[in-house]
Amino acid sequence: MSIERADQAAVKAADRAHVFHSWSAQAHLDPLPVQRAAGSSFWDYDGNRYLDFASQLVNANIGHQHPKVVAAIQEQAATLCTVAPGFAVDVRSEAARLVAERTPGDLDKIFFTNGGAEAVENAARMARLHTGRPKLLSAYRSYHGATGTAINLTGDPRRWASDTGTAGVVHFHGPYLYRSPFHATTEREECERALAHLEETIVLEGPDTVAAVVLETIPGGSGILLPPPGYLPGVRAICDRYGIVMVLDEVMAGFGRAGRWFALDHYLDQDTAPDLVTFAKGVNSGYVPLGGVAISAAIAADWDERPYPGGLTYSGHPLACAAAVATLGAMAEEGIVEHAAHIGETVLGPGLRALAERHPSIGEVRGTGVFWALELVRDRETREPLVPYRPRGDEGRPTAELAAACKRRGLWPLVAGNRLHVVPPCTIDAAEVEEGLAILDEALAVADAHTTAGATSAA
Amino acid sequence: MSIERADQAAVKAADRAHVFHSWSAQAHLDPLPVQRAAGSSFWDYDGNRYLDFASQLVNANIGHQHPKVVAAIQEQAATLCTVAPGFAVDVRSEAARLVAERTPGDLDKIFFTNGGAEAVENAARMARLHTGRPKLLSAYRSYHGATGTAINLTGDPRRWASDTGTAGVVHFHGPYLYRSPFHATTEREECERALAHLEETIVLEGPDTVAAVVLETIPGGSGILLPPPGYLPGVRAICDRYGIVMVLDEVMAGFGRAGRWFALDHYLDQDTAPDLVTFAKGVNSGYVPLGGVAISAAIAADWDERPYPGGLTYSGHPLACAAAVATLGAMAEEGIVEHAAHIGETVLGPGLRALAERHPSIGEVRGTGVFWALELVRDRETREPLVPYRPRGDEGRPTAELAAACKRRGLWPLVAGNRLHVVPPCTIDAAEVEEGLAILDEALAVADAHTTAGATSAA
Ligand SMILES: Cc1ncc(COP(=O)(O)O)c(C=O)c1O
Ligand SMILES: Cc1ncc(COP(=O)(O)O)c(C=O)c1O
Repeated sequence: MSIERADQAAVKAADRAHVFHSWSAQAHLDPLPVQRAAGSSFWDYDGNRYLDFASQLVNANIGHQHPKVVAAIQEQAATLCTVAPGFAVDVRSEAARLVAERTPGDLDKIFFTNGGAEAVENAARMARLHTGRPKLLSAYRSYHGATGTAINLTGDPRRWASDTGTAGVVHFHGPYLYRSPFHATTEREECERALAHLEETIVLEGPDTVAAVVLETIPGGSGILLPPPGYLPGVRAICDRYGIVMVLDEVMAGFGRAGRWFALDHYLDQDTAPDLVTFAKGVNSGYVPLGGVAISAAIAADWDERPYPGGLTYSGHPLACAAAVATLGAMAEEGIVEHAAHIGETVLGPGLRALAERHPSIGEVRGTGVFWALELVRDRETREPLVPYRPRGDEGRPTAELAAACKRRGLWPLVAGNRLHVVPPCTIDAAEVEEGLAILDEALAVADAHTTAGATSAA
Repeated sequence: MSIERADQAAVKAADRAHVFHSWSAQAHLDPLPVQRAAGSSFWDYDGNRYLDFASQLVNANIGHQHPKVVAAIQEQAATLCTVAPGFAVDVRSEAARLVAERTPGDLDKIFFTNGGAEAVENAARMARLHTGRPKLLSAYRSYHGATGTAINLTGDPRRWASDTGTAGVVHFHGPYLYRSPFHATTEREECERALAHLEETIVLEGPDTVAAVVLETIPGGSGILLPPPGYLPGVRAICDRYGIVMVLDEVMAGFGRAGRWFALDHYLDQDTAPDLVTFAKGVNSGYVPLGGVAISAAIAADWDERPYPGGLTYSGHPLACAAAVATLGAMAEEGIVEHAAHIGETVLGPGLRALAERHPSIGEVRGTGVFWALELVRDRETREPLVPYRPRGDEGRPTAELAAACKRRGLWPLVAGNRLHVVPPCTIDAAEVEEGLAILDEALAVADAHTTAGATSAA
């Protein structure tokens, strides 16, 4: 035990010596050392177990250390670790086939990248070159990655430091009934008004200047904002009307997360398929970095005769593709997507709604599959967020305390803005969900204390 | 044998069904199926062996399937395949330490990415935020990656399709004595004039508008353009004079390629270190996608108290870091960097210079370590390139024929522009070099036939 404790401190010290962390103030980091992981849990060096209700960064859809995926990586490593994008490689072709099998319409050509941002970069390039138009439209309350174009497409505060206003991106408002930008009171009204807003934005920007509308199918990092059923078909119709490329970003929502192979399967069919779909994360659960773009036949054909002007050293990396082949195979064989849908409908969704009845800090429960958010408020009537959009000074304390309360009880949470995202692996079982819900039930008392109701009862 | 032949066709057909390839016209691809690789060679399904004089895309510095790296990947896969960037992880800390150990000056904080483009993106962001200035200066005849900022920093034709002129990048001319942009006739003159040109560009752009000078230490994809010895120290002095961040891109040149841990070790010392160094490829030979930025203490300190506004899901990926730890360990234990320097000096360099004496198509031989280029010309007197900067129609035929001639003889070449890059693994032995040189000797006859000398002798 004392050796393990020493390890815990040593691993943390080694991290602080040389590792520069993303999205963080470096002087105030206290990173938890992780020693191992399995299924829905991971462990630190002190032997503490954490139930992974974040799936790391919403990528470990198949859970940790799935034996088929581990074995596939090990076998591929023994055969061929690296090969340039220009060659033909069995696992790369098979990964492309398995992705194409799940995409709607004729999105049957797959361009592989290392992650989500690079996928979005290439989708943006394809749309601009396909249309010959300069501008990209994307939604506020979105995240698309942190490279040049992707961070400018992003519609959350992570964009601000990198935004010079010269990227050719115009942001519009997506549907969000709970805080309707359109003063709507019903889902149907929100849908109609959101579509009217998008179309008016396009008309006023000049339809001939707009290459693409880029949307997360279900905006994830910004709050798991399920669109009303008619919204994406409406976007498809608007794009058709003006010759605009429709890009759906499924980096977070895809591959089981939303209880479907792609989240778009909830909303669109073969005839209303988008033109480009970006993916990453769930495609191989992040066991090896992989992302990509699924490309419609019409857009792919643009580069039949002239070279596509984009690439990267590790496009279609063999280890990453081997992991994807094993992941997609296991997900199909083991019915993991159906399981995610079922657990969401029967255990996780109902359980979160039951929590909302007991906790005044929960303003809304939204989600599907294993893709849920609790929107936290100070006051259910006013819907004032528990923490502001950009917290300053001490304003982020309520959610920080909530996260700490979860961690103390052995649940690893994902807090984003004024929300607790509940995004465990697709493979989580009912007992683990119940265990996590019980922890949330206790921890949410911390959030309740910051509500007007909590202040009243405390007074 | 017939089964293997069937496989060859089947693997190729599977690729053409769904894989969209980078930088290529899709209708005219005939990708070679690769079945396995070892050391300096790889094999197709027909059992044909190719000596890898390209190190794939100049990434397999340690050669193919190095047993220590394969074992490290397999072990890490068994332990922990994926973990979010926010945690402390033993292999990530150790990879950061091993990189920091090789960087000059106080570049001791390491931000990991998936590849080179993302490394450059983050270096650009850091430089802009550190200085509060908008513009980035980079060189013509350079490549920095294909995401938004990186492709705009790029100074070769790959930029053109993605360039809207709004990225805040200004290109200048680097030293290139063989085709001097400065009408210089000696290395010393080229160096002085290149520095004067850079400084004048900065003065005329407005020094207070320039965040960074971004340079490949040795421009790789653009021709392995070794700078004169005084150039980079001169750039350092100019950057100091105007408070500009000096970024060296070592994605291709680093980790043994140039016969040093970093190519900058040829030119700079502890007191003239750059502020940021980007790396990828050789850091783990591309066995798992990995890149990163090494950050000076002064720049890293900017984000002690406020959050660094950048990140990616797979920053510091455990499999990639485990591969880096094993690669950097093996390179040190086995003296691979010293071997690369030695083989370049004693076998590869002299061998290429001997070829130049026999082949009129070779205008110049440049290089160090296992990082060489043969610059091919139609005429040694006029130095007219064997193919133009942007070949149209049939103009690329001479180098295409040369590449085909190499492949037919079992050598996998890297042709870029009017050059043959000779970039085998750092681990290549003298016999393999000799074998490759003999093939080049034969194949170069194809290039010679396109020279004025060749035309004369044919007449
Ligand atoms: C919808 C979406 N798009 C793109 C990205 C960027 O992916 P990556 O971090 O792999 O670059 C993310 C990451 O969370 C995402 O959620
Ligand atoms: C010098 C340099 N920088 C950046 C890159 C981009 O790296 P990646 O292809 O991993 O994005 C390359 C790729 O060849 C490179 O040579």
